Amino acid sequence: LHAEDLAPPKSNRQKWNFLSECVEKAMPALVHIQCEPPNNGQPFSHLHSTGSGFIIREDGLIVTNAHIVRGMKQVLVKIHDGKIYYGLVIAVDHVSDLAAIKIEAKNLPTLKLGDSKDVRAGEWVVALGSPFDLVNSAAAGIVSSVARGSEELGLQKAMEYIQSDVIIDFGNSGGPLVNLDGEAIGMNNMKGPTGISFSIPSNYIKDFVERAKVIDERSDNTQKQCFFLGVDFLTLTPNIIPELQTLRPDFPHDLGMGVVLIKVARGSPAFRYGLRPLDVITSINGQPIKVASEVTAAIASGQQLKIQFRRGQLTYETIVVPQPQY
Amino acid sequence: LHAEDLAPPKSNRQKWNFLSECVEKAMPALVHIQCEPPNNGQPFSHLHSTGSGFIIREDGLIVTNAHIVRGMKQVLVKIHDGKIYYGLVIAVDHVSDLAAIKIEAKNLPTLKLGDSKDVRAGEWVVALGSPFDLVNSAAAGIVSSVARGSEELGLQKAMEYIQSDVIIDFGNSGGPLVNLDGEAIGMNNMKGPTGISFSIPSNYIKDFVERAKVIDERSDNTQKQCFFLGVDFLTLTPNIIPELQTLRPDFPHDLGMGVVLIKVARGSPAFRYGLRPLDVITSINGQPIKVASEVTAAIASGQQLKIQFRRGQLTYETIVVPQPQY
Amino acid sequence: LHAEDLAPPKSNRQKWNFLSECVEKAMPALVHIQCEPPNNGQPFSHLHSTGSGFIIREDGLIVTNAHIVRGMKQVLVKIHDGKIYYGLVIAVDHVSDLAAIKIEAKNLPTLKLGDSKDVRAGEWVVALGSPFDLVNSAAAGIVSSVARGSEELGLQKAMEYIQSDVIIDFGNSGGPLVNLDGEAIGMNNMKGPTGISFSIPSNYIKDFVERAKVIDERSDNTQKQCFFLGVDFLTLTPNIIPELQTLRPDFPHDLGMGVVLIKVARGSPAFRYGLRPLDVITSINGQPIKVASEVTAAIASGQQLKIQFRRGQLTYETIVVPQPQY
Repeated sequence: LHAEDLAPPKSNRQKWNFLSECVEKAMPALVHIQCEPPNNGQPFSHLHSTGSGFIIREDGLIVTNAHIVRGMKQVLVKIHDGKIYYGLVIAVDHVSDLAAIKIEAKNLPTLKLGDSKDVRAGEWVVALGSPFDLVNSAAAGIVSSVARGSEELGLQKAMEYIQSDVIIDFGNSGGPLVNLDGEAIGMNNMKGPTGISFSIPSNYIKDFVERAKVIDERSDNTQKQCFFLGVDFLTLTPNIIPELQTLRPDFPHDLGMGVVLIKVARGSPAFRYGLRPLDVITSINGQPIKVASEVTAAIASGQQLKIQFRRGQLTYETIVVPQPQY
Repeated sequence: LHAEDLAPPKSNRQKWNFLSECVEKAMPALVHIQCEPPNNGQPFSHLHSTGSGFIIREDGLIVTNAHIVRGMKQVLVKIHDGKIYYGLVIAVDHVSDLAAIKIEAKNLPTLKLGDSKDVRAGEWVVALGSPFDLVNSAAAGIVSSVARGSEELGLQKAMEYIQSDVIIDFGNSGGPLVNLDGEAIGMNNMKGPTGISFSIPSNYIKDFVERAKVIDERSDNTQKQCFFLGVDFLTLTPNIIPELQTLRPDFPHDLGMGVVLIKVARGSPAFRYGLRPLDVITSINGQPIKVASEVTAAIASGQQLKIQFRRGQLTYETIVVPQPQY
Repeated sequence: LHAEDLAPPKSNRQKWNFLSECVEKAMPALVHIQCEPPNNGQPFSHLHSTGSGFIIREDGLIVTNAHIVRGMKQVLVKIHDGKIYYGLVIAVDHVSDLAAIKIEAKNLPTLKLGDSKDVRAGEWVVALGSPFDLVNSAAAGIVSSVARGSEELGLQKAMEYIQSDVIIDFGNSGGPLVNLDGEAIGMNNMKGPTGISFSIPSNYIKDFVERAKVIDERSDNTQKQCFFLGVDFLTLTPNIIPELQTLRPDFPHDLGMGVVLIKVARGSPAFRYGLRPLDVITSINGQPIKVASEVTAAIASGQQLKIQFRRGQLTYETIVVPQPQY
């Protein structure tokens, strides 16, 4: 007779809550990332771009999306127990939208990177992150497609994404997509229409981390000036235009490319010079804008930006100066 | 040899449908609540505020949200078998947004209130209610956060909510959030953006019910005059402003507080005097409005209301007289 | 000792991914359907109405929604391995919104039609299809209600639907709703607000297929001229009006009936003559329009259509000529 044969029968709740195990195992490795505030000492305000990331090495190696660190050399990192660290951005890849951050710490909880080649359609996944700034939130769903090609999303690069039906928000960006064994099989990256979410497969992250380690070793900790505009944006792809048109009936339908603003922080430079959600940036300083990384690069330059944008059927122009961070 | 060893092997469908058991166990205790119609005898029309509730004592003690009964002393209650009762509102707590209703009946199916301290992140939950007036609907998800503080939601009270990724609608308000053991661990209370839902933990409900029982015993069944304006509303919190701005690009961004209208019933007093969805009430009779319960109280007064509200960048004023119910 | 007693213990991922089995079993029978392109040879472009369907007989009998084939005699069918076939529309029932298509093939993977009388509230289901043109996508959820009456949805016919909380899009229309045993218990048919989806129960499909077989045998393969307007639409029902009003604050609230446009294809006849998403068609050629099938029939006539429609509080009129297909 085994001990478990004598144990009282498990209730349904005890028997079937397999997602709780996976959430409880993975959550401690989740981090919340924020660019430093410009003028006051209040960290983690709503004014600034924030996102998620996760710890993959117990000495503080963290991965996140490149668009979250947006050209900064140093960011604030809040870990699960509430401690806040300065994190050094040690590597960025704008094509895959991956970034590596290093904080000075020891014995941190980590998340193992799974093998994304092994992912099955229909398998349970949990997205961890900070949707709408609600930190340490978990949401569940299944893998909808194991390898959605970037060309199907209208993106001009050769990548494949894990598509899931988990409901995520921009605040989930950079956070892990976790399987039932508590491994990160992807990093949440893009939100489509509700119930259509895209994650960067973990094998891309593994490759990136290998390269980042090299950079980490030769890192000289030089801090460079960083800049802030106050906008969240994403590359305009044909398949999201119908949804944007439903949100705003006069959303331009004749745009083949551009970058659409999703959020504009109140009081930010972008806000003060007239940019608003659902505006579409079509050119900066005379150069046509096709993908989000071009906007990131323009902001990082710190120079005055002459931005042309579409709102409904009209075209506008504004001049904005990114705000230095420190 | 046991009988079950000889039984044919279960199909996947028979083995894994653990949520069906929980829905079938809990559904009979769900009720549908409606304020009485003003002018005609047609109950459960679309004109009036409706919501959900659930039976917690077999002699007809029902709990729901305070904002559903909105100042009324008597409401209509439809139970699972289709029977309609008059229910007496015996206790209301506007801070926690809880109300207790008593119907005269016996041997009703009940739902047990679980222990909300015991809830785990990632555990399966089912929300029962009437989203978009579709009665007896079930929706599933997981617990996203076991204790989301009201201050994180911009609410000025000291409460914690269970956050889940279940998709609910205002018609789910007052309905139970059920765990896999078929216990109510919360009451669905607020809808954030899609996939972000908040429920009042069951331990708050237990405390409230203890107090309500005392009131029940001394209840004198006096009916007081009740009033109707025809609006569904919720307290404006900073974290829902970005979503409202996406729905309506000119939604005011400079409002620190107010109460935003979600639905305005066609033909209601509010509708006839110009109020529309997404208007934000900022003051009534010269008093600034900060939380939803102040609007409820103003309607319940039955007096003429001078309502100041924001629509886009403009401020309007209207005078409305709540309509007596019976 | 059994072999399985010696096997290493399964990981949570291996133990609990019961939805993967069901997706992997059902996916090969899913097909993608498109009306033929009018002017160029590029199949499966975004210009045309597309939808999903599934194979129910290994010699190429396929079922889908009637509104997807919209009056055409022949459509393009892409099966799971990428092969494209011409499919003959052999039967259409506009009341139940079902159509049967036959392609010339052998040994195709099929999906068994389950018994929809046997469906339980709360049981796991997976919707397969092409939401937002993302082919072969899977999304999961539970059955919210086993028999939602069409009268509750404001539809003037005597049908019942399976309501689920799966997030679907118009591109899921015609695709299967699959249970854990890998059987189609319904066909995805209508999208309500997010998280409220309606499927035609499989027993309706069985009845329809019986009738379709007879037609198949006497089919003479006559091809008739078909027409294209470039719109996706659905019958306006009272319970979707509040959601449409939130999307567009001035959406008309005084409309008792009509057909609301959901998508208008860029460059299509409808688009060129001024129709836009969220317009409500109220009459065609002087006849009041109450249900979607009347619009389908008008387009199929190929004649010039004088369309009266509401946009916000104003009424417009336009004259459109459907475009011949081949």
